[in-house]
Amino acid sequence: KGEADKPAAETKNVYVFKKGSSGGRKEMKQLLGGKGANLCEMAHLGLNVPPAFTITTVVCQEFYKAGGKLPNGVWDDILSAVKEVEQAYGAKFADPADPLLFSVRSGAAVSMPGMMDTVLNLGLNDTVVKGLAKKRGERFAYDCYRRLLDMFGDVVLGIEHSLFEAEMHAVKEAKGIKLDVNLTGDDLKEVVRRFKGVYEKVGKSLPEDPFEQMKLAINAVFGSWNTPRAVKYREINRIRGLLGTAVNVQSMVYGNLNDNSGTGVCFTRNPATGEKKLYGEYLPNAQGEDVVAGIRTPLDVTHMAENFPEAYKDLVANTNMLEKHMRDMQDCEFTVQDGVLFMLQTRNGKRTGPAALQVAVAMEREGMVARDEAVLMVEPRHLDQLLHPMFEGTNKPEYKKAFLGKGLPASPGAAVGKVVFTADEAEKWHKEGEKVILVRLETSPEDVGGMHAAEGILTARGGMTSHAAVVARGWGKPCVCGLDKLEVDYPSKTATLGGTTLKEGDWLSLNGSSGEVLQGKQPVKPPEMSGELAVFMEWVDSFRKIGVFTNADTPADAIVARKNGAQGIGLVRTEHMFFATAERIAAVRRMIAAEELLEGEGSSAADALAALKEFQREDFEGIFTAMDGLPVTIRLLDPPLHEFLPHEGSPELDALCETLATEMQGRSGQHMSAVRILKSKIHGLQEANPMLGLRGCRLGIRHPDITEMQAKAILEAAVNVSAKGIKAHPHIMVPLVGFEEELANQVGVIRKAAEDTFKAKGATVEYKVGTMIEVPRGALRAGDLAKHADFFSFGTNDLTQMTCGFSRDDAEAKFLPLYVSQGIIQADPFEELDVTGVGELIKIAVQRGRETRPNLHLGICGEHGGDPKSIEFVSTLVDYVSCSPLRVPIARLAAAQAAI
Amino acid sequence: KGEADKPAAETKNVYVFKKGSSGGRKEMKQLLGGKGANLCEMAHLGLNVPPAFTITTVVCQEFYKAGGKLPNGVWDDILSAVKEVEQAYGAKFADPADPLLFSVRSGAAVSMPGMMDTVLNLGLNDTVVKGLAKKRGERFAYDCYRRLLDMFGDVVLGIEHSLFEAEMHAVKEAKGIKLDVNLTGDDLKEVVRRFKGVYEKVGKSLPEDPFEQMKLAINAVFGSWNTPRAVKYREINRIRGLLGTAVNVQSMVYGNLNDNSGTGVCFTRNPATGEKKLYGEYLPNAQGEDVVAGIRTPLDVTHMAENFPEAYKDLVANTNMLEKHMRDMQDCEFTVQDGVLFMLQTRNGKRTGPAALQVAVAMEREGMVARDEAVLMVEPRHLDQLLHPMFEGTNKPEYKKAFLGKGLPASPGAAVGKVVFTADEAEKWHKEGEKVILVRLETSPEDVGGMHAAEGILTARGGMTSHAAVVARGWGKPCVCGLDKLEVDYPSKTATLGGTTLKEGDWLSLNGSSGEVLQGKQPVKPPEMSGELAVFMEWVDSFRKIGVFTNADTPADAIVARKNGAQGIGLVRTEHMFFATAERIAAVRRMIAAEELLEGEGSSAADALAALKEFQREDFEGIFTAMDGLPVTIRLLDPPLHEFLPHEGSPELDALCETLATEMQGRSGQHMSAVRILKSKIHGLQEANPMLGLRGCRLGIRHPDITEMQAKAILEAAVNVSAKGIKAHPHIMVPLVGFEEELANQVGVIRKAAEDTFKAKGATVEYKVGTMIEVPRGALRAGDLAKHADFFSFGTNDLTQMTCGFSRDDAEAKFLPLYVSQGIIQADPFEELDVTGVGELIKIAVQRGRETRPNLHLGICGEHGGDPKSIEFVSTLVDYVSCSPLRVPIARLAAAQAAI
Ligand SMILES: [Mg+2]
Ligand SMILES: [Mg+2]
Repeated sequence: KGEADKPAAETKNVYVFKKGSSGGRKEMKQLLGGKGANLCEMAHLGLNVPPAFTITTVVCQEFYKAGGKLPNGVWDDILSAVKEVEQAYGAKFADPADPLLFSVRSGAAVSMPGMMDTVLNLGLNDTVVKGLAKKRGERFAYDCYRRLLDMFGDVVLGIEHSLFEAEMHAVKEAKGIKLDVNLTGDDLKEVVRRFKGVYEKVGKSLPEDPFEQMKLAINAVFGSWNTPRAVKYREINRIRGLLGTAVNVQSMVYGNLNDNSGTGVCFTRNPATGEKKLYGEYLPNAQGEDVVAGIRTPLDVTHMAENFPEAYKDLVANTNMLEKHMRDMQDCEFTVQDGVLFMLQTRNGKRTGPAALQVAVAMEREGMVARDEAVLMVEPRHLDQLLHPMFEGTNKPEYKKAFLGKGLPASPGAAVGKVVFTADEAEKWHKEGEKVILVRLETSPEDVGGMHAAEGILTARGGMTSHAAVVARGWGKPCVCGLDKLEVDYPSKTATLGGTTLKEGDWLSLNGSSGEVLQGKQPVKPPEMSGELAVFMEWVDSFRKIGVFTNADTPADAIVARKNGAQGIGLVRTEHMFFATAERIAAVRRMIAAEELLEGEGSSAADALAALKEFQREDFEGIFTAMDGLPVTIRLLDPPLHEFLPHEGSPELDALCETLATEMQGRSGQHMSAVRILKSKIHGLQEANPMLGLRGCRLGIRHPDITEMQAKAILEAAVNVSAKGIKAHPHIMVPLVGFEEELANQVGVIRKAAEDTFKAKGATVEYKVGTMIEVPRGALRAGDLAKHADFFSFGTNDLTQMTCGFSRDDAEAKFLPLYVSQGIIQADPFEELDVTGVGELIKIAVQRGRETRPNLHLGICGEHGGDPKSIEFVSTLVDYVSCSPLRVPIARLAAAQAAI
Repeated sequence: KGEADKPAAETKNVYVFKKGSSGGRKEMKQLLGGKGANLCEMAHLGLNVPPAFTITTVVCQEFYKAGGKLPNGVWDDILSAVKEVEQAYGAKFADPADPLLFSVRSGAAVSMPGMMDTVLNLGLNDTVVKGLAKKRGERFAYDCYRRLLDMFGDVVLGIEHSLFEAEMHAVKEAKGIKLDVNLTGDDLKEVVRRFKGVYEKVGKSLPEDPFEQMKLAINAVFGSWNTPRAVKYREINRIRGLLGTAVNVQSMVYGNLNDNSGTGVCFTRNPATGEKKLYGEYLPNAQGEDVVAGIRTPLDVTHMAENFPEAYKDLVANTNMLEKHMRDMQDCEFTVQDGVLFMLQTRNGKRTGPAALQVAVAMEREGMVARDEAVLMVEPRHLDQLLHPMFEGTNKPEYKKAFLGKGLPASPGAAVGKVVFTADEAEKWHKEGEKVILVRLETSPEDVGGMHAAEGILTARGGMTSHAAVVARGWGKPCVCGLDKLEVDYPSKTATLGGTTLKEGDWLSLNGSSGEVLQGKQPVKPPEMSGELAVFMEWVDSFRKIGVFTNADTPADAIVARKNGAQGIGLVRTEHMFFATAERIAAVRRMIAAEELLEGEGSSAADALAALKEFQREDFEGIFTAMDGLPVTIRLLDPPLHEFLPHEGSPELDALCETLATEMQGRSGQHMSAVRILKSKIHGLQEANPMLGLRGCRLGIRHPDITEMQAKAILEAAVNVSAKGIKAHPHIMVPLVGFEEELANQVGVIRKAAEDTFKAKGATVEYKVGTMIEVPRGALRAGDLAKHADFFSFGTNDLTQMTCGFSRDDAEAKFLPLYVSQGIIQADPFEELDVTGVGELIKIAVQRGRETRPNLHLGICGEHGGDPKSIEFVSTLVDYVSCSPLRVPIARLAAAQAAI
């Protein structure tokens, strides 16, 4: 927020930076990408960064406009940047005598880990490699060369990485070697020879000219911005509005130079727990990619104190300084070359929900950030993780008996699902409604779709910063990784762990907080709000300007929501109560029979309604008691009556008709004819588009005695609990109103019912009457509706359906996924409020409603009431949002962040 | 238009008028009612009207506010008005010596014939009647008294009229008398005695005090404003915004005084044909009610020249003068008392469509009205009648053989339906989808519901101005009346005519233009546009400011519409072509199978599409040819694909799956499995709310090759006909657009298809691409959509469905009738555009669309495009309306009237 700036009118194509000197700054992320901007900042701060330059995101945008090539003039800018870097580094690109090599990396304003391409060691060819060998040793030089051939082939020329792997494997096999580090210079020369053979086989070659290599690599990185998997990643993560990626061209420093070298990543605090302690991993004698790929299991970063004491001291100092300067937990990459520390990257670290909370609270207490900044540091999805269920009784024998093994606790939470072994299967099973655990040796960027579909991820290889771990943490999805005892056999779709064989479809439980893997379906429990979280939520509420209500249909729901901080109920769906017991649904069906089916047949609707009223009154008494002192907004009957009946043609319907016919036989004569009449009337209730049919207030207008019954049940309950000293604040809400007269009609029935009730009871309570705004016409005529309403509640589900013309069930099954993937819409409008369409109607309704009645109380009670982006949009329009009990804390946070 | 003024701030409660003196004027209809205002005008003009006073509609409104009683002070105003009238008349109310009697009649601003109540001869009691007998003769006095007893009993006290009728009948029976006029004074005394017996039997009495009679009668007339049948009449006729009825209290003049007296009604021109000739009927020695009730068959008004030469001369002079003064054909009531003419009423006469046309054209030619006034004199519903079908070959032997009898041609047009004998049956059968002819001895205001439901009305009694005739003409419904050979036997539900017995349910044909009644179902033919009509329509077009297009799916429709003056096609529903032949629907189903069902099964969608493209191209060639030189707007495929398939579970579907599976067997392997797959995929096409599901542009986005196929078919057709010298103007229209990107996507496919087509054909045509605005979101985002659209067409059917949240089929079956009858809505929004809701969205869309693209071409193509009130609303917003071919002339007229 506020950090991503627009590029200034006058910007350069290329920004050069080196220790103590930089044209860029951390605020220029939109232009330089996150990586580039922060590298510039580190250089500016005087940290030891390898000299380098960043090509801007504006160039990327122009690259696409130009049809996929560098715009005019940019190459000249690059050449002069290369010259500057050469001077700073003290060596020359393409100079066999003392060759300077470059890395080329992508870097957008928002991090997209593993999504885009990187090429290391650019500048080598058969001549230069010999110079490098002379200067740095043969083993090192050919290790660099084989890496270049592999990466350039893969990234720039599209040669399958596995072809190179196979050759590598063959050489190691032939030599009986297990680890890459054990390959000798000659072995690596052989590897290079074989890699060139791969190039030849596919009819391609590495350009001899290092500048040509550089140009192609830069083009490839720009090109990687729009690969299908990058586009899909941005969709899933709702990353929008970026110009493109920047390209960072950096002079190489070598973690793989010798055993006095290495490479690593670290966090200034623990990204899983938030603990304040330098936390990370490093690999001696390796290049950065070796760590991230998770192929070798790395060492804890604290071990560096022994191997590289100077470099470690610098690392601690640098990272402390960066955390203070950046005002957030940092995630840094570094390389040690011959004992000297180079900083390769810093960024705000991704973290789990518990860590986010811990870091925010701690940094506020340490005086590093102000309280409002601390509130902004915890994202709603972090809170969501904190509110995720955990396993129940982790020290009970049943849990311990199910234990299969323990890996790294890479992303916390409890996940339970059926085992699958490929990302494709995970997506397929998920679509079929199955919960799955994705089990892999390791994951790669191709797997993100399946990872997203899974409940949790388990890998055999890779550390806390492996691909699986980073991605899973980003999503708040439980992940256990680096469980090396896990053996996976893809062809047979089985895995073994702790002597147990897991087949595809077997149930498995992952404890991402402890790293434990458990057989079967382990029971889970809901989370609690206490400790740091309670403190943090107090801070949150001190900034929040709108209320947070809840949607709750039972006293139990109401109690949970109140514990989570709900300040009232924004929506009680009375019809949900109708399904609670067999007795109730029977009463509802008798009511329908009396009201709708036996119209004019002499059957008594009054009896059926009286029975239902008893049930409803009890329910409302419970809810008023649970919400003592807070408003309770109750929606009158909304769904079409046929929803309460068994499906046509079902044996249940036959049985129901029999029963009802028997009940009414005394009144209506022959039994068989009664059954026939009932069936035909039930058939008559069917609708072509029930969503737009006889429901909502239309029901209440057709059957005013149902409205009357519900209003009486509500107000009798309120009077009854008031007599016990409980403060009931009933708000009665009329659904699906499009016309002023509809509301006037129902308000009339309600006010009359209130008069009758208060007279009969000899006591009164204060109550309000309002309406849902969920029909486009209702929004447009809000000025009229406000004449009759004390409050409005936006029913954004129905409002979205009608405004967009989407039947939610049909649209989500038939075309919304296609729409999102084709970019026709940015997000499913049922998940994230469509602010330019539905939002516009809300604005109109708010303005017109308040014009008529300035003190109109306004809320939203659709599912969007729990969605942070939607809350941000409505936070300047309404008085409160209402969401499900479990999302109340998230809504509180989102509302606070919107207000800051 | 412009005539119904608001009451001025200062108005009186009661307006007195007499020959040559009047406080009211014809412009004060809103305050004095139509009858009162015109009586005032006649008095002002110096015509001989009986002195009288009018109690205003404002009093009526206050009467209801006061809970059904006269507001304070009004009775005093009435008493002083009575005094004024007494002076003018020269006799006194309640004075036995020379009693003045009064009539009390209702009169609203809009005529509601027979809907409200009247009491004549007020002021008689047992004493006064003796005084009257002394002055005017016994027979006359008791005739007046028995009428008063009957009417007062019926209207004021609610005593069944039939009870009085039965007594009257008994007396006539006893005396062997057929006609009332043959009753002697003594007979009538006996009738009075018996009528009083009726009062006693029901425990009521006629107040002795004449002023009490007057007060009760005035209250009863005000009360008649809100009887259910009056409310229903206003609903059916969409009469709104009136304050109430005025009450006219007028001194009695006596058509029943003697044989030198009489009463009648006349039109200044023939209301069925428009012929310029005094046209009407009178009854000697009768009071007005006798004519309207149709009990005695009256004489032609021209016969008055013999019986009452002076009175007739006055009548001709008065009516001529009135027509000129009122600038319209007049419908007058008059009474002759002892040879002296009194004018009792004048108003603009109701007329048939042919008469309206004739009168308007003639009056313009006679210089009585200006051309724009003439255009306003023909109502859209008149034109509707002119465009009604007529019987084919009325001089063919088949027609002549079917002849049963001939009555009065009371309301023209051809009606064919099944015989029913009661209004209730007519309504019931109509609801069940039957066409009915209502056959009655006579009709009464209680019958209006059934009359409205019937195709045509046949009565045995009553003349051209009987209730049946007046009401039927108002609606443009064929009516034959006064067919005295018709014998109706209600109990046995049969009638006989010309020796034939008609039973309930028998088919019958009525020729309302000739009065002929024909057995069975006679064939009908469409009307033609020629002669005066053609002239009139030229006038119409000279005032019209917006275009009138048509909705047409075939060349035949296009030709009809063009003959009717359509200036283009606003909507071709391509899918309608798909159902044209078995071959086509088979091709469509093959396409669906290929596109949707066999996705990824290797079946070739291209073949299926190519076949359909051929059909479509031929269709479009036909339509372009028919519309040579005019724009043709073609909507791409709109309905959900499942609409083209047989219903689930039907044998047709099984057969289809068999056929398709057989076709694809070569490709997909086993036949049985193919059938199973097809059935399950077809099941998968079902939707919960198909109206809001996968249809419109959503189909085109999911299946771009269907859009491409249709675009190519359209543009190939355009190129092909252009080669023959025909000017094709294709406008391609994308349906159901809510999001800018939807439209951008489809426009892209269309433009690409155009390029391909023009390249392949080596020729180009100009074409436009636009969108329907029919999703609320589309209306709100019209500014964005206009970036991609050359034109907008408002699909007001879908826009109404989504804006109001009404599924049309469900709403019209389940609750819209209830809504209209309860006054929650004023009219079915699918018939008359909901201007404050849907209309508001249209305004928003027009404004935003034109902001983006000032030359955006705008039209509406929903059914509202043919509804005059809707046309008036949109006439300042859009460039054209589009309606069904037969409604084109009506739309032209409505558009012209909106522009005047
Ligand atoms: Mg709703
Ligand atoms: Mg439509």
